[in-house]
Amino acid sequence: MILTVVSGWRGLLAVAGLSLTVEGLYYLIRYLKRFRERRPQVLFFPAPVTCVRPLLLSSPGHCSCSLSHRESALSCLTRLLLSARRSLDVCVFTISSVELSNSVLAVHGRGVRVRVITDSDYMALAGSQVGAFRRAGIEVRHDQDANYMHHKFAVIDGLILITGSLNWSAQGIFGNKENVIIIKNTDVVKAFIEEFERLWNEYDPSKYSFSPKS
Amino acid sequence: MILTVVSGWRGLLAVAGLSLTVEGLYYLIRYLKRFRERRPQVLFFPAPVTCVRPLLLSSPGHCSCSLSHRESALSCLTRLLLSARRSLDVCVFTISSVELSNSVLAVHGRGVRVRVITDSDYMALAGSQVGAFRRAGIEVRHDQDANYMHHKFAVIDGLILITGSLNWSAQGIFGNKENVIIIKNTDVVKAFIEEFERLWNEYDPSKYSFSPKS
Repeated sequence: MILTVVSGWRGLLAVAGLSLTVEGLYYLIRYLKRFRERRPQVLFFPAPVTCVRPLLLSSPGHCSCSLSHRESALSCLTRLLLSARRSLDVCVFTISSVELSNSVLAVHGRGVRVRVITDSDYMALAGSQVGAFRRAGIEVRHDQDANYMHHKFAVIDGLILITGSLNWSAQGIFGNKENVIIIKNTDVVKAFIEEFERLWNEYDPSKYSFSPKS
Repeated sequence: MILTVVSGWRGLLAVAGLSLTVEGLYYLIRYLKRFRERRPQVLFFPAPVTCVRPLLLSSPGHCSCSLSHRESALSCLTRLLLSARRSLDVCVFTISSVELSNSVLAVHGRGVRVRVITDSDYMALAGSQVGAFRRAGIEVRHDQDANYMHHKFAVIDGLILITGSLNWSAQGIFGNKENVIIIKNTDVVKAFIEEFERLWNEYDPSKYSFSPKS
């Protein structure tokens, strides 16, 4: 029936034109939908003091503590870290937040490859979670000079970048005015992965040369 | 001639279909081009020590100092700040970089509306450029509590967001491992404008209440 109706070159041209239009629109809508899903997300801090312990349980559980368990910038960040399935690369000046370090430990405990880069001065301060990471078998590398390794980013599965002003500390999360952007743009994520690999290589302890003190 | 060839409903359908395809493709290409221009840009620090003085001259000029004048992450940041035509909103924990504060002063000197939010503790330290801003007539507001106003962002003309880990200090620019992302995504820029306006309002000095010390 259709073939009869569209017989002749003009009919074929019409069908070709219309099918191209429909197909073009389909791809445009699909592209825009994917683009919408990939647009950056912003979190502002301080976050309200909430408990994120239920998110860390391997099976859905309940926490009976007196804190609120509602959604917050912290729970969003926690969910993101916990979403890692293949790799979690953390490159943060300060890591003293028990909530975020518990997320990192939980991801490592599931067999995900976790690597941490941090600042040598701040990792030695009280409250730093670097010791807990190392005891759990997570490799941690740090800078070797007087300047700061001042980045505050993480890359999840090589696909999602978390970056901003936020140090991973209780004061950063619950006290300070801070921001975090979650970015899935391939070029941006790639640039941060390259920066991570560059620093990971630069801070490789097998490359250190220690001179014995005279 | 065309009208003769495409006579009949199938011909009209063909023309309609093809013109829709061409128009759809035109808009798709235009959209993708605009999207490409709007994709985020990333700068990593430390930057090489370069002189950006020529960028600050009102007419193209030459600097005979011994420093390099080549392009760098600092010159990119300087150009961006200097591109402000209508407004420059700066919300940065530390502002002690002479290079970046000279850019802010130059923008203010051209009659652009400049507003600065910073942290009360760090604005009092030696090297802070807040005094120079205030002497030039730039309004500076700051937090009022023990926590930090730890953001490190600026919005240019309400259109371009500069944000990241970088404090506007010489150590941040020339010493530390830092990052800055330049974002033009409307939703993200809007979120940071709203955060700026919220803090600008919260830190309005006319709202302070000072109790005389007993």
